[in-house]
Amino acid sequence: MANDVINVEGMSCEHCVKAVTIAVSALPGVENVSVDLDGGKVSVTYDPALSALDAIKSEITEQGYDVVA
Amino acid sequence: MANDVINVEGMSCEHCVKAVTIAVSALPGVENVSVDLDGGKVSVTYDPALSALDAIKSEITEQGYDVVA
Repeated sequence: MANDVINVEGMSCEHCVKAVTIAVSALPGVENVSVDLDGGKVSVTYDPALSALDAIKSEITEQGYDVVA
Repeated sequence: MANDVINVEGMSCEHCVKAVTIAVSALPGVENVSVDLDGGKVSVTYDPALSALDAIKSEITEQGYDVVA
């Protein structure tokens, strides 16, 4: 797992914290999301080995279809 | 750019084609999406160099916030 801290502008309230947390958490390979509202920072723990193709397959599955080998 | 063909089960109509095309096209790094409904295949042209971190930053931007350096 890798951890990165991303500087984000525009988060002003707990709604923003929730929106970012839910959206980023839903991404494939993301293990943990932590938002520092005052500091404008989003800390993310994720699998750096996840490929673009994995993300594409995950998106198709999310839409309700089955990806088969 | 890389191209991969993904076998997908459950796509039964033009609504499915549209849902998959829109969802996958919205992913960062995806350049082209083509669905073969009868064959159950989704062909995707995308940037294989896109990292998991790029996808995370893209998701934050989609939520309406600005990722800054």
